[in-house]
Amino acid sequence: MEKVNIGIIGFGNIGSGVVKLLKKNSSLIKERTGIEICTRKIADINFKKNRGIKIDKKILTRDAREIIDDPQIQIVAELIGGIHPAKEFIINSLKKGKSVVTANKALLAQEGQEILKTALENGQDIYFEASVCGGIPIIKTIREAMLANRINYMAGIINGTSNYILSRMEEGLTFKQALIYAQKKGVAEKKPSLDIEGIDAAHKLAILGSLIFDIPLTFKNIYSEGISSLTPMDLKFAKEFGYTVKLLAIAKEDKGNFQFRVNPALISAKHPLATVRDEYNAVYIKGDAVGKMLFYGKGAGQSPTASAVLSDIIDIARNLKFETCGRITPITYYKKSYNVIPIQQLKGLYYLRIMAVDKPGVLAKISNILGEHNISIASVFQKGRNKAEAVPIVMMTHEAKEKDISEAIKKIDKLPAIKGNTVRIRVEE
Amino acid sequence: MEKVNIGIIGFGNIGSGVVKLLKKNSSLIKERTGIEICTRKIADINFKKNRGIKIDKKILTRDAREIIDDPQIQIVAELIGGIHPAKEFIINSLKKGKSVVTANKALLAQEGQEILKTALENGQDIYFEASVCGGIPIIKTIREAMLANRINYMAGIINGTSNYILSRMEEGLTFKQALIYAQKKGVAEKKPSLDIEGIDAAHKLAILGSLIFDIPLTFKNIYSEGISSLTPMDLKFAKEFGYTVKLLAIAKEDKGNFQFRVNPALISAKHPLATVRDEYNAVYIKGDAVGKMLFYGKGAGQSPTASAVLSDIIDIARNLKFETCGRITPITYYKKSYNVIPIQQLKGLYYLRIMAVDKPGVLAKISNILGEHNISIASVFQKGRNKAEAVPIVMMTHEAKEKDISEAIKKIDKLPAIKGNTVRIRVEE
Repeated sequence: MEKVNIGIIGFGNIGSGVVKLLKKNSSLIKERTGIEICTRKIADINFKKNRGIKIDKKILTRDAREIIDDPQIQIVAELIGGIHPAKEFIINSLKKGKSVVTANKALLAQEGQEILKTALENGQDIYFEASVCGGIPIIKTIREAMLANRINYMAGIINGTSNYILSRMEEGLTFKQALIYAQKKGVAEKKPSLDIEGIDAAHKLAILGSLIFDIPLTFKNIYSEGISSLTPMDLKFAKEFGYTVKLLAIAKEDKGNFQFRVNPALISAKHPLATVRDEYNAVYIKGDAVGKMLFYGKGAGQSPTASAVLSDIIDIARNLKFETCGRITPITYYKKSYNVIPIQQLKGLYYLRIMAVDKPGVLAKISNILGEHNISIASVFQKGRNKAEAVPIVMMTHEAKEKDISEAIKKIDKLPAIKGNTVRIRVEE
Repeated sequence: MEKVNIGIIGFGNIGSGVVKLLKKNSSLIKERTGIEICTRKIADINFKKNRGIKIDKKILTRDAREIIDDPQIQIVAELIGGIHPAKEFIINSLKKGKSVVTANKALLAQEGQEILKTALENGQDIYFEASVCGGIPIIKTIREAMLANRINYMAGIINGTSNYILSRMEEGLTFKQALIYAQKKGVAEKKPSLDIEGIDAAHKLAILGSLIFDIPLTFKNIYSEGISSLTPMDLKFAKEFGYTVKLLAIAKEDKGNFQFRVNPALISAKHPLATVRDEYNAVYIKGDAVGKMLFYGKGAGQSPTASAVLSDIIDIARNLKFETCGRITPITYYKKSYNVIPIQQLKGLYYLRIMAVDKPGVLAKISNILGEHNISIASVFQKGRNKAEAVPIVMMTHEAKEKDISEAIKKIDKLPAIKGNTVRIRVEE
């Protein structure tokens, strides 16, 4: 029986989940791998919160250096999140000859290149399955199972909070009501902006985009829009056109030009992503050999994330057993530069909702502006009649340029008969 | 640059697909892994068929021994299918110190234990991702990504041909019409019985069941039923009850007792498997840590299967690069024995369709028989009225024993007012 010692930095929700899961299933893991995973030390600045597990107090420390400097510890799990001191803990662990497992998407999306380079230089592994889509093994799938494929498209529902809120909005709640409900259910944080504004999804997209396209992608090259301006009315209209609205993270390649964006999107009700509801995540991905694939599961939560952390630990433990760190190289990108298409240059179909006072000639004025910007309408309907208040005019366009759409909306919104801002949602095919 | 030599036995649809994919994406694979995969020899008994690729004739041979005996070849891909001589080719390759990749589900389901044992004894790897669900990396997911999970449930649509036929039957075709259509489209074979009678799915289930439950499962312990007795009428009625009919491969564990079966099943229209259409495959699986997961993709076809074969070859090549064969042990089961619940002892919900002449008292007689067998009805409807011909009576039961259902059906079918055999479809929750 091989024995591998791990140190856990961060004994919060995920860290304690890993310890719990290891307690529960360590005999199973031993039987399946011949490896015993021993938790040698756990570091945190505060152990007051009851984590619901009995731990020998001798293995607890308030000083992460006790883990980083311990020559007996072979794998460090960084589970504190945030940029500092997580980055320093990881870098120092790698330099001390330890492999690292992390769930820290923000850090990898922003400073990933330096971290991966440090792992490579020190001959250590760094695995980060838990950083994207919790329990869904999407990173392993891309780095191993789809390795013989050229991938040119990926669209994912990779933020569970947003998807949960959208699921509630489909049932008629407003964004605010749905957010409060999600917070009560523990699906949204008190400060929800990272999730609802698409930032968290953009962090994960930076990691996935780098892996699928072999490029050193960083977070700053990703366009992101959140869901806070959506209304249940738009979700209802989308449904009438045969679509569902989802917050998608999209990566596309076309002849060496890349698109990376997080935005609410209309997708056909028949699309495999359309039935992904509540806090579930799913990644839809196309390989040139394997075709269309979908991976679905829980993208967050203590136990699914702990499962991903532990599978990474076991993967590295297997590498340690055979002295093969670097079996999967930490730096998976070989292309040095890449061209990202600015959002204004994109082309696509659009859903537009314009709030207009119901007067003769309004639709003609709108149509004229759209025509001037080379935007042609595939279908349009106007809901209700109300001389006093504005009523929604809903349109689906044919293919149009983002820049033209933006300029047309600006002009439309200046018309006297138009109330409020026009809502524009991209259609994803 | 590491160089790994492979030999391919079987230059049919899959074998030529692997060679094509390797030609297309070998530079990509080199960049991503630092490994060059070289096809050193290809064996087949017949090279007359045009495979659409240019091959140096010097690497072709009609004698598989030229591959098995070649000391330069490190990995053998067995892609001829069938039991003999595929088994001997694999065993001899392992004994000669070569690792093996195979797509041969029938062989693994029937003689897998001997083959895995030979690999273990000879310190070689045997990988078989392509044997189950083509391009979906379900084996890698179970053996690596879900390793820290105890799995107690799996349900899969793992036969593309059947699923394609059922998709056409949902549109109104009879089974025979749908089969002929599938054959024309190249989705069903001329001799389709392996696919439509559930045998192919049972082969795959034997492989997956062994992996998820750590047991030496073989094909003969799996109950299987096909789709040939289903009618479009049943699919329509199922839909009216809010269900979809799919051919499912099911593995369940309850306190050390196992169920393994392939049968048509009613699943809720909201189940993640319900929207898997046409020739697509999907596996739905529950882990105690990770929760519910779904993996969706093409389960067959030249290019998806080649993708799986090649990802296995690369995995082994990575092991060879570091001299770590056995990193994932060939024998993944540690439990020596297991108890399979006989089909007649199962409990569940059932859909029943009884064809009865529309006479007073018939429903009462049927109800009496069901009552005598402890079967209670959740809902029932009778379609149409026709004094001359039999009309369908459709029922959904509450939980009942399979044995009771079988016996009740026997009695019901003997009633003078009953025409034809009663159709019984299990409901999967």
